[in-house]
Amino acid sequence: MNIEQANETAVTRMMAARPILKTVAPARDVIPRMRKNLLLHAGPPIAWERASGPMRGAIVGALIYEGLAKDWDSAEHLVTSGQIDLEPCHEHGAAGPMAGLISASMKVYVMENVTHGNKAYSGLNEGYGKVLRYGAYSEEVLTKLRWMNDVMGPILADALALGDGLDIRALLAESLHMGDEGHNRNKAGSLLFTTKLAPLIAKVVDDKETEAKILQFLGDNALSVLNPVMAACKAMADAGHGVAGSTIMTVMARNGTDLGIRVSGLGDQWFTGPVGQPKGLYFPGFTEEDASGDIGDSTITETAGIGAFAMASAPAIVTFISGTPELALNTTLKMYEITHGEHTAFTIPALGFRGTPVGVDIRKVVELGIRPQINTGIAHKDAGVGQVGAGLVLPPMNVFEEALVAYAERYLG
Amino acid sequence: MNIEQANETAVTRMMAARPILKTVAPARDVIPRMRKNLLLHAGPPIAWERASGPMRGAIVGALIYEGLAKDWDSAEHLVTSGQIDLEPCHEHGAAGPMAGLISASMKVYVMENVTHGNKAYSGLNEGYGKVLRYGAYSEEVLTKLRWMNDVMGPILADALALGDGLDIRALLAESLHMGDEGHNRNKAGSLLFTTKLAPLIAKVVDDKETEAKILQFLGDNALSVLNPVMAACKAMADAGHGVAGSTIMTVMARNGTDLGIRVSGLGDQWFTGPVGQPKGLYFPGFTEEDASGDIGDSTITETAGIGAFAMASAPAIVTFISGTPELALNTTLKMYEITHGEHTAFTIPALGFRGTPVGVDIRKVVELGIRPQINTGIAHKDAGVGQVGAGLVLPPMNVFEEALVAYAERYLG
Repeated sequence: MNIEQANETAVTRMMAARPILKTVAPARDVIPRMRKNLLLHAGPPIAWERASGPMRGAIVGALIYEGLAKDWDSAEHLVTSGQIDLEPCHEHGAAGPMAGLISASMKVYVMENVTHGNKAYSGLNEGYGKVLRYGAYSEEVLTKLRWMNDVMGPILADALALGDGLDIRALLAESLHMGDEGHNRNKAGSLLFTTKLAPLIAKVVDDKETEAKILQFLGDNALSVLNPVMAACKAMADAGHGVAGSTIMTVMARNGTDLGIRVSGLGDQWFTGPVGQPKGLYFPGFTEEDASGDIGDSTITETAGIGAFAMASAPAIVTFISGTPELALNTTLKMYEITHGEHTAFTIPALGFRGTPVGVDIRKVVELGIRPQINTGIAHKDAGVGQVGAGLVLPPMNVFEEALVAYAERYLG
Repeated sequence: MNIEQANETAVTRMMAARPILKTVAPARDVIPRMRKNLLLHAGPPIAWERASGPMRGAIVGALIYEGLAKDWDSAEHLVTSGQIDLEPCHEHGAAGPMAGLISASMKVYVMENVTHGNKAYSGLNEGYGKVLRYGAYSEEVLTKLRWMNDVMGPILADALALGDGLDIRALLAESLHMGDEGHNRNKAGSLLFTTKLAPLIAKVVDDKETEAKILQFLGDNALSVLNPVMAACKAMADAGHGVAGSTIMTVMARNGTDLGIRVSGLGDQWFTGPVGQPKGLYFPGFTEEDASGDIGDSTITETAGIGAFAMASAPAIVTFISGTPELALNTTLKMYEITHGEHTAFTIPALGFRGTPVGVDIRKVVELGIRPQINTGIAHKDAGVGQVGAGLVLPPMNVFEEALVAYAERYLG
């Protein structure tokens, strides 16, 4: 077993993957095992009983949205009685921010890695305020979801059908030269996304007000591109998964209670541990006591070599997550110690165009005691309150230790 | 005479200026002394006889565009016989990139400094390829100008009329956090500009193809916002002009032959000297021997404290102008030595959010022998070939020395 060679294969595949945004379609039409009584969620597997506040709120919201429940109690009953299945997005080629809920009728972005052929999915980003991904499920939230799904979704599909799709890897590479890191700061990427779509949208919409609303919704939301970026990172990370003997992490995700990782050479097994509590800047009126545990699949960005790993590209992010530009620089430098390679597509101008650190090697994490850094939004611990801040957080060390033990048993035992 | 106090007044006024893009209108309707037989051009005053190739080509193109000439010879005759007046943009509150031609019927951006009430103007940016600002004047160039003037211009005016105008200082502040420096790299700013205008444009255009074309024209052009930025910088610099006793430079501009500066406390007098030859990266097939002398009013950006002065914000620019990210950083650091203050609106994340160096003090330039750095596009020396590269250039030292002598005679004599 040549571990280095296996890791080289895994990371080279991740970097060679070229995810193209092809269309927007209902989850049930494109995600292979999607079905009416299935909800996909962020992070590793979780049951209702151990689910966090925002996760529960989002589950309730999704069931009301689907017309399967009418309120919290009936939704809870459906889930706890086993009439509804909860499964991780990551077990279906998908990735969702925060609670990450995807239900059968929800529209998703369809990303195709044209190098290796695998696909990945993510929902449409809801923007700010009361949103399902933070566990809000009021009528206001559902109304916006319906508009996104029924009005904006088909228009995005029509617009994308006019071209050959959007190269999200190229978009990310450009946005990393424009102060983004791709996880918690996606301002430039969202502008690139909106600007590339705008002429296509103009061609397919008849109603001026609808068109203006969509362009404003995409353009005003500095996270518009987060979901396509997550699907792109999922497509890239998946391309590196399943390489026998590889110790490269290909999934890292949180459900608000547990953080789970998967490793390229260890198949579909999850290694889980308790989520951390992000440290950062809180919005006015909120403190650390209001915070939910770390939540969301958006750590697929760090898994693919961007996000906190590319923070040196995004010095302005510290106004949002606290810290100094030196912290941003040092975070990236530290991540080189636990990664296999330097990205050939994603480079950091401030480091002389050095490639971002890519491919977390679980051996290095355990040996050096350096955990992968995560940039994240912070959710309120209660369902439906929403985002209360943004900051930095680490995964629990046990997940890497346990994965390494499993690796030893499997390959070296 | 308290020079420091005068300079503090001048620079404080420059920083307090808040330029808002109000509308797009024909030059003759908004620029006070504009008239049919007047052409505005970049840089200090210049006659046909000493004009560079790209300046001559742009003059010819503008006269054909206005229907005043039919070809090079008839255009040259009009100018050399005195039937057409050539005057600097800067003498009319305007600023134009490269040759910077503005004729009576051309649409211009109208910028209003809402703090002090002064206005400034710049034409619409033509994008890439064969363009008037580089001295091209073929039918293809004129056709595009007509479309910009007759189709896009009125739509931009209608779109802007729906809101309160665009705050270009705020846009610039944001773009400096996104890898722009505002002169030679305006990628983020142009995306912000396009994204802010898109929903307004959607509301005022009936024809889908026209709308798609405008959105694509603005979105694909990484210099879309350069002209509004130049008008905004002109409005800011003008706000600092005319302060008795001030040694702050308020204009620096090049016509391809001469570079000229003006100083806040020295009224409308130009101090001129020979332009430099930019050093930089050339497009394939071109070398330094193809280059025109330094040309354009775009140095109003450096005058207002951005452009090369903010290069530390734009490490990725070195892929375009040559050099390393350290060069970008060091350029900004050096400019602090010859400037009066640090900008309160424009900050540089990579320098711990330090304000950009603003307000070139001609005393410091002469004392230290450090000249203001300029980032610039490089024009071909022959009319109509276009851009051949981009790089760095310095103004001639004599303009600062002569201005200082004039200052001494006026205030200390």
